[in-house]
Amino acid sequence: MIIDKLYERVKKVGNVCVGLDTSLDYIPVDFRKKFENIEDAIFHFNKKIIDATCDIVSCFKVQIAYYEAYGLKGLAAYKMTLDYLRKKNMIIIADIKRGDISKTAEMYAKAHFTGDFESDFITLNPYMGIDTLEPYLPYVEKKDKGVFVLLRTSNRGAQDFQYYENKEEKRLYHEVSEKVNNVAQRYLGNCGYSSIGGVVGATFEDQSLRKKLNNMFFLIPGYGAQGGTAKDVRRYLNDGNGGVVNSSRGILLAYKNFEDGEENFDIYARKAVQNMREALENE
Amino acid sequence: MIIDKLYERVKKVGNVCVGLDTSLDYIPVDFRKKFENIEDAIFHFNKKIIDATCDIVSCFKVQIAYYEAYGLKGLAAYKMTLDYLRKKNMIIIADIKRGDISKTAEMYAKAHFTGDFESDFITLNPYMGIDTLEPYLPYVEKKDKGVFVLLRTSNRGAQDFQYYENKEEKRLYHEVSEKVNNVAQRYLGNCGYSSIGGVVGATFEDQSLRKKLNNMFFLIPGYGAQGGTAKDVRRYLNDGNGGVVNSSRGILLAYKNFEDGEENFDIYARKAVQNMREALENE
Repeated sequence: MIIDKLYERVKKVGNVCVGLDTSLDYIPVDFRKKFENIEDAIFHFNKKIIDATCDIVSCFKVQIAYYEAYGLKGLAAYKMTLDYLRKKNMIIIADIKRGDISKTAEMYAKAHFTGDFESDFITLNPYMGIDTLEPYLPYVEKKDKGVFVLLRTSNRGAQDFQYYENKEEKRLYHEVSEKVNNVAQRYLGNCGYSSIGGVVGATFEDQSLRKKLNNMFFLIPGYGAQGGTAKDVRRYLNDGNGGVVNSSRGILLAYKNFEDGEENFDIYARKAVQNMREALENE
Repeated sequence: MIIDKLYERVKKVGNVCVGLDTSLDYIPVDFRKKFENIEDAIFHFNKKIIDATCDIVSCFKVQIAYYEAYGLKGLAAYKMTLDYLRKKNMIIIADIKRGDISKTAEMYAKAHFTGDFESDFITLNPYMGIDTLEPYLPYVEKKDKGVFVLLRTSNRGAQDFQYYENKEEKRLYHEVSEKVNNVAQRYLGNCGYSSIGGVVGATFEDQSLRKKLNNMFFLIPGYGAQGGTAKDVRRYLNDGNGGVVNSSRGILLAYKNFEDGEENFDIYARKAVQNMREALENE
């Protein structure tokens, strides 16, 4: 199962997940000028980041919104990036946050688990109900794919609905967690974790969640730019494993703090990953 | 505001919204054979449906999952379809159900309100919180765009989380509805409805919702194939306006019931729209 591959990878190189949320204005001007069209500029920027960091990161998370924003050209860059990651045998999380039902969800599964946009894991939004997961399960069972379902996100507004409490004061995200966890039990890997994981933001405290969802692997956003610290993150890991911690701007834009940054953006990205690994290990 | 345009259109031609959820296997074999590549096959099928129905429908809803499933070629067909709808001055609802925060949501807004994939309305998923709406609001205010936020969907599993009750027995979808409605009040058109609307499935009963959300325009899925009847739908309309009712397979696949259907799929699509209009008017 794909979760065993991710677990082993984390054991070997640590929890850092590099977020390729590549906005055109993140690319240093001189580097961008080398390319005639935007899809090549975006892809080659990503390629430099991937080459500079791939031996020390657990996986890459590609946020599709940044590519959709540039239309067909952006999605061509998205495809090139996924192809390159696959060629390098890297684990890919496609951060697509889709959530839909029946035939429509089948089409999303086909879109992101096969063909041009094939990835290893996708993120899903549970609002429409547990039946939104079903069309992805055959891929989890037979095609070595996985999903991360949004449980408690890292934004301030997460409290609006995810904290909605029933009469026993149980918050909605606990209800979602339990129901997703029930499904997750059917897809456990040898490592003890499920290929059905959860998204849990670094920016809040709920130590019970790690315990209750003991077989669920976490995708943890919100580190760095959004305010989550290494200490916050440790709460969601078991003995250092059981989750990957995403950083996007903190890595892609690390070069901005240095005078010679623009020419060496990939070197500074690597340094940012190294710093983040150390912070996570030493906390 | 875009909602005034939609309101006037409904007043003139009725509530039917045609869903262009075009799967390749919906296209009659002989028609498909005319085209060398799938993007042309999908686009030209859509074009025939659009030409056959556009004078008697309020708007078109394009479900992006069906296009994503065919990768870059599918998205080329998506773009061609949107371009053609715009050329015909039709109102487009892009059914994308995105839901994300801050910079990511800004990128989705850019993706679907400008450029290759520009549409008039998009659908949004509120699970991450009310702050997920913010990046779209400048487009609503200044660029004549609108959104439909998922409130209570038409699937069976909608009950899993949307029915989650607080200690006053208020369900989550009422909480979501109220919070979205608060935002909606800031974007009212001359017609009295807001450019911030809601998705409310035809397949359930809650007559209070129409009353409570008196300024919200509804996108109503679930008619026909999913089991919603004209009677179910009427509950969500005020004097016949205040909502559009989507049908996808019921229109695209209407031809399957007739011996000469394959050659005349567009004619049968028009008949299906006419029947649906009559059913909605006479209930």
